[in-house]
Amino acid sequence: MSQKYTTRAEDYSKWYNELVNRADLAEHSDVRGCMVIKPYGYAIWEKMKDILDKKFKETGHSNAYFPLFIPKSYLSKEAKHVEGFAKECAVVTHYRLMNDEDGNVVVDPSAKLEEELIVRPTSETIIWNSYKNWIHSYRDLPILINQWANVVRWEMRTRLFLRTAEFLWQEGHTAHATKQEAIEEAEQMLHVYADFAEQYMAMPVVKGVKSPSERFAGAEETYCIEALMQDGKALQAGTSHFLGQNFAKAFDVKFADKEGSLEHVWATSWGVSTRLMGALIMTHSDDEGLVLPPTLAPIQVAIVPIYKGEEQLNAISARVATLTSTLRAKGISVKYDDDDNRRPGWKFAEYETKGVPVRVAIGQRDMENNKAEVARRDTKEKSSVDWDGIADYIEQLLGDIQSNLYNKARAYRSEHITEVNSYEEFKEALSTKGGFISAHWDGTEATEDKIKEETKATIRCIPLDRKEEMGQCIITGKPSQGRVLFAKAY
Amino acid sequence: MSQKYTTRAEDYSKWYNELVNRADLAEHSDVRGCMVIKPYGYAIWEKMKDILDKKFKETGHSNAYFPLFIPKSYLSKEAKHVEGFAKECAVVTHYRLMNDEDGNVVVDPSAKLEEELIVRPTSETIIWNSYKNWIHSYRDLPILINQWANVVRWEMRTRLFLRTAEFLWQEGHTAHATKQEAIEEAEQMLHVYADFAEQYMAMPVVKGVKSPSERFAGAEETYCIEALMQDGKALQAGTSHFLGQNFAKAFDVKFADKEGSLEHVWATSWGVSTRLMGALIMTHSDDEGLVLPPTLAPIQVAIVPIYKGEEQLNAISARVATLTSTLRAKGISVKYDDDDNRRPGWKFAEYETKGVPVRVAIGQRDMENNKAEVARRDTKEKSSVDWDGIADYIEQLLGDIQSNLYNKARAYRSEHITEVNSYEEFKEALSTKGGFISAHWDGTEATEDKIKEETKATIRCIPLDRKEEMGQCIITGKPSQGRVLFAKAY
Repeated sequence: MSQKYTTRAEDYSKWYNELVNRADLAEHSDVRGCMVIKPYGYAIWEKMKDILDKKFKETGHSNAYFPLFIPKSYLSKEAKHVEGFAKECAVVTHYRLMNDEDGNVVVDPSAKLEEELIVRPTSETIIWNSYKNWIHSYRDLPILINQWANVVRWEMRTRLFLRTAEFLWQEGHTAHATKQEAIEEAEQMLHVYADFAEQYMAMPVVKGVKSPSERFAGAEETYCIEALMQDGKALQAGTSHFLGQNFAKAFDVKFADKEGSLEHVWATSWGVSTRLMGALIMTHSDDEGLVLPPTLAPIQVAIVPIYKGEEQLNAISARVATLTSTLRAKGISVKYDDDDNRRPGWKFAEYETKGVPVRVAIGQRDMENNKAEVARRDTKEKSSVDWDGIADYIEQLLGDIQSNLYNKARAYRSEHITEVNSYEEFKEALSTKGGFISAHWDGTEATEDKIKEETKATIRCIPLDRKEEMGQCIITGKPSQGRVLFAKAY
Repeated sequence: MSQKYTTRAEDYSKWYNELVNRADLAEHSDVRGCMVIKPYGYAIWEKMKDILDKKFKETGHSNAYFPLFIPKSYLSKEAKHVEGFAKECAVVTHYRLMNDEDGNVVVDPSAKLEEELIVRPTSETIIWNSYKNWIHSYRDLPILINQWANVVRWEMRTRLFLRTAEFLWQEGHTAHATKQEAIEEAEQMLHVYADFAEQYMAMPVVKGVKSPSERFAGAEETYCIEALMQDGKALQAGTSHFLGQNFAKAFDVKFADKEGSLEHVWATSWGVSTRLMGALIMTHSDDEGLVLPPTLAPIQVAIVPIYKGEEQLNAISARVATLTSTLRAKGISVKYDDDDNRRPGWKFAEYETKGVPVRVAIGQRDMENNKAEVARRDTKEKSSVDWDGIADYIEQLLGDIQSNLYNKARAYRSEHITEVNSYEEFKEALSTKGGFISAHWDGTEATEDKIKEETKATIRCIPLDRKEEMGQCIITGKPSQGRVLFAKAY
């Protein structure tokens, strides 16, 4: 592992790309904009998926599956929605290939679809077209459905996990009898996402709502969680939308209420995607490689024997066997790496690159002293630990690493929320330390646009817990009722 | 529930369609050939998925994810493969929509792809194109990867779960250094599928290999499991392919062996799909509705209180609470249905339609006698059971139902494997009782074609455990070394 990798300080973007590659998480495919998620990367995504899925079910949701294809005309039914999504989509126009005269495989011109199909960029339209037939009376409500699926949004500039033409995600789509219930659902799912981000990803997030110009196409209100990456750029990690009656009106979905009168149904949708992988990587990792919070690490503990000859190896293996079974009984995932073809130094480097939270090394001297060397990935500290009680030590250490990662990320974020009271201060803070800039804003799109154009910073969110504080917009001086968070963002 | 449904005897196909609908499993979407898998249907599929996924991991496989789109030229690289798949596929030709002069949403003619993309009908080509970069030496082998994904094969005549344009499946794709290892992998996965079918789906299957004409496009050998539906038609429930070096050659994937010489890699692929849902339904269900084996039932036990007034309900609910927690502690999924808006008769009918294996009813008299009525879905038998020990009784009953369903299906199948020694007997058996017809075949495609044309029966498989038995082909009289199984099939 003598190869020199780019550090975060040298080039954050290059560091990220190299890391995704060397930690064996994903790679670009030959298909423009589409990624291959490799087994190690997918194993982390699976852990995220399992935890989120459990949380969705605990909050009363069921999974279902809707078609990959959306007839072109459906996208057009909700006016803002088509504006937002039609510009970047994969269009299926034919349904057959054939051999031409020269034996080449070509599209069969006679197999042209009457109406083009769009590969779903999001599923509101196809789902509300189904809900129309499912909903008749208030007894059919609420509908609380989630879908795990792939979606496609044609992107010109792509980055692994952060922005790809095809990505994996979940999309919740719920239908409610009242506005209030739909708003509560959208807020509930925002909290589910925030809890997941903080408790499992060890990634602190700000909960807020988007400014009107940053709302989802077709939403009345977009709730979001915003995280801060180590380069001072923000990343939108999840969104939950209160859709009002927009899709119900577009697809004519009404229900008879208890009094028998027909009303349009209220809706939400909410989603997180493989983009979370990018957020996870950029929140914790360092110049040596990936750093994973224990709750999401496919391998939590790697044990490496250091030996000469088969006899020593056998003795170590016998001792380690009891540790691995004790750890597994505690629900801790362990890999005992006795591969004879790779030297310990190579193994250490590999587990470091792959972000395995705890590494245990045990050699002849450790055997004699009834000890082992335990190294934690986050701080790189090593300790010589008594073999008796080592399982409890490791269990506790995993918990410590989880909190340490969260606390460290939270401290970084706290240092990178800057309150400013003038545009000069705003630009100064943005260019020197980056991060979130908390400033007064007059509530207009014109001001947002001006700031974006001049500084590339956008309003990430209006925090849910912001103080009521009268102030003046840093651009126009007009009155403002509270600060919003600006940042450059992924 | 006064509506009269079609019985199996009246019209098996109509019975199936009605059942999928009334058990709330799936429905046709407005998108031609694509289905919506509804929450109850999806919950069964999720159970299948979880069990299979665990089995794949136990046999050393990891999940990964490859692109949805396949460049047209990739499909052409393996000659037989393109023959088999190019004829029925969704072709993406453009990547943007636009508004025309009249404000209609149309395909932007300037956004035409240089090379068309095919929505994957199966992923051998895109995956082997990746493996090419992953495999250099024998140390990189084996690669044991599975993918859970959606695929699209344009179908003109579709049936829910059995044949749809888009379906969900898993596809394993493995790479090996030796022919022997690849064959063992293909066989191992066949056994995994067979165990799953028999132990979880309670569906007996015949393990065999396909005749050359029924092989997967690009395979050297296709292993399959074949099940028998209640109408006497066979259903291919899973396939596992030994692909030889065909894809390695098409994508130029070589590895350096221990001696340093370059060899082409050996491959397998294997898959099961949402088609298994169709197989599950048609193996066990009856005229009253769905019948589910307990291991795959989203709700294993439904408990219905029968009461007048809140006081009685409260007393029943208090008693039932201990039962539900005892059952849940045993890992049994329970629904206590105290919905006051639906009468017990409606609830009974619903759980019958949805195939809930065990229904418990408890009323005032049961309370007084310290009993409850336990009904099993498979045989519809009811018993009055002492409340003390009822949890153990139910646990045992679930096991009994699982074996009973398997035994019943197995008995049906045994009655429907007919050995014949002439074409007359063949046609007679096929038209009177259907099922598998075991007959000698001369090994030629011409004979297969003739039988298929005249009777619609095809060779389902050459059973792995067939006896060596010299005989004469029922059509040509030519020598045959053993019997093969014919049937009409889904």
